[in-house]
Amino acid sequence: MTQESSQVAPRYLTGDKAGLQEFLAKFDVFLFDCDGLSPVLALSRRSVRGGVLWSGDHLFPGTVETLELLRNKGKQVVFVTNNSTKSRADYRKKLEGLGIPSTVEEIFSSSYSSSIYISRILQLPENKRKVYVIGETGIEQELRSENVSFIGGTDPAYRRDVTPEDYKKIAAGDESILDPEVGVVLVGLDFHMNYLKIALAYHYIKRGAVFLATNIDSTLPSSGALFPGAGSMSAPLIMMLNKEPIALGKPSQAMMDSIEGKFKFDRSRACMVGDRANTDIRFGREGKLGGTLGVLTGVCSKEDFVSGEVRPHAYLDKLSDLLGSE
Amino acid sequence: MTQESSQVAPRYLTGDKAGLQEFLAKFDVFLFDCDGLSPVLALSRRSVRGGVLWSGDHLFPGTVETLELLRNKGKQVVFVTNNSTKSRADYRKKLEGLGIPSTVEEIFSSSYSSSIYISRILQLPENKRKVYVIGETGIEQELRSENVSFIGGTDPAYRRDVTPEDYKKIAAGDESILDPEVGVVLVGLDFHMNYLKIALAYHYIKRGAVFLATNIDSTLPSSGALFPGAGSMSAPLIMMLNKEPIALGKPSQAMMDSIEGKFKFDRSRACMVGDRANTDIRFGREGKLGGTLGVLTGVCSKEDFVSGEVRPHAYLDKLSDLLGSE
Repeated sequence: MTQESSQVAPRYLTGDKAGLQEFLAKFDVFLFDCDGLSPVLALSRRSVRGGVLWSGDHLFPGTVETLELLRNKGKQVVFVTNNSTKSRADYRKKLEGLGIPSTVEEIFSSSYSSSIYISRILQLPENKRKVYVIGETGIEQELRSENVSFIGGTDPAYRRDVTPEDYKKIAAGDESILDPEVGVVLVGLDFHMNYLKIALAYHYIKRGAVFLATNIDSTLPSSGALFPGAGSMSAPLIMMLNKEPIALGKPSQAMMDSIEGKFKFDRSRACMVGDRANTDIRFGREGKLGGTLGVLTGVCSKEDFVSGEVRPHAYLDKLSDLLGSE
Repeated sequence: MTQESSQVAPRYLTGDKAGLQEFLAKFDVFLFDCDGLSPVLALSRRSVRGGVLWSGDHLFPGTVETLELLRNKGKQVVFVTNNSTKSRADYRKKLEGLGIPSTVEEIFSSSYSSSIYISRILQLPENKRKVYVIGETGIEQELRSENVSFIGGTDPAYRRDVTPEDYKKIAAGDESILDPEVGVVLVGLDFHMNYLKIALAYHYIKRGAVFLATNIDSTLPSSGALFPGAGSMSAPLIMMLNKEPIALGKPSQAMMDSIEGKFKFDRSRACMVGDRANTDIRFGREGKLGGTLGVLTGVCSKEDFVSGEVRPHAYLDKLSDLLGSE
């Protein structure tokens, strides 16, 4: 991203029929942010509600029609989410529950992104291809979909207190507790996080495993408040190891690489749509996409888009203003 | 600490009878480091063994006689430890098990330091005096010894999975789950750390509670290897809140203040004894104690003491060289 390109004032397209038509014609792929809140903004006093397609449980009017318009024009629609606890299939159900028709192929979650990264991008030695997972079923389902073998995750054997025996076995590198084939530690949001899981992850990484995180959002918005997010699961390891994980969620470009690896699109013909300049728009800008589109129904204000540090190419009051191109 | 005072070459006292006598005569109080390893050194390849009085389960020869010599000369001996899982009474038993006679009054642990800090130093409003504890029984015992009321800790009600109900209640500030009298969150090493505990701590701090940590050592040495330490329990909260806790263990001066509050000694007549320049010696230097004494039976080398960034006033090959003053 050049400083200049992201600091040109964005074009305001609401109500500008010709401008909208021109903008839409430039792109074949539209990536939609589906997450509620950035880790940085979570620390401010701003509302924790809002987004691009919906807010809380409330679908914005015109969302379905807008997606239909894009699909009818032959555009590829991709729903991008840092949520790692759900698989793509789970997430499709969530979208359906909100009233948004979609296919599994249109969904790109950080759990899927991580699986793609492990199976197609990391070059692991033959005998080091097992993944030690801290996380929920969404990660496991996506690892299975890429034929990646793993341990940990939702296995009840890891949902227990640490024992004096564990300390001795771990310290001794006992293969009954430390699998010698583990070459990757993948950390996502885990509602069953515990001392034993962190101790094992630490020792695997010390023994040479690659340290990956599905995403590093420190908080998770739920019920209108904030709770520990995936980043909070990595935090003890980051402190103990004095080392950051490779993060596979937005705004990490590892996620963009995974999306490109899957859809094989021309970046100059793709547009990222989001409500947050520092994550969504930055993600698109740094990924050198042809376009970025901000919407004012979420976290960022007009002021943020027009004179902030990272600015979209264009912005709208709300996503459904795209319908004004007809 | 002035840059100069800590950078004068330390005096080497092993075998120097007159020098030893002169050194001992300067002090009424000797503080002994009792911990195994600093968080920073834990990250290096150095041995995780060694210390001042013992190494692993092995008491250094002459330790008991040296402590006896000091006590016979009327010196106050204080054992200082960042270990928060044990109460002073537990720790006395541990010392006894190693062969070191001691009294509870001679022991100063980070759990005790935290309790003193809460009861005697923090000025809490009448209706905000309850402490929400993440930690084990050592903390609870010491809070009780200072008549501080608390919740959390080893209470089995907190050792469970988070539920959808919890999210709703916490988000709503429901008093059945968030006690309105909590004014302090105290985080120590907790072998039963979980998602619910972190979520509650986060919300208490967001609602105004003071964020304290017994200590922030990221790792815990055990069985010759490293495991998650007290700092790893604070790590998710530090990331979520973008805020550091007040730490009560070494090298935080809050611990020195607590020790002084208890023993009422003259700092110029006190000496800190340790094997690590960056924690023990720094702790004594920054606390403006009259003396600091390094020993070579632990982490630091002669080179570290003689030309490192923080240097002790004097150093010995081993603690029992103090017996050479007789």
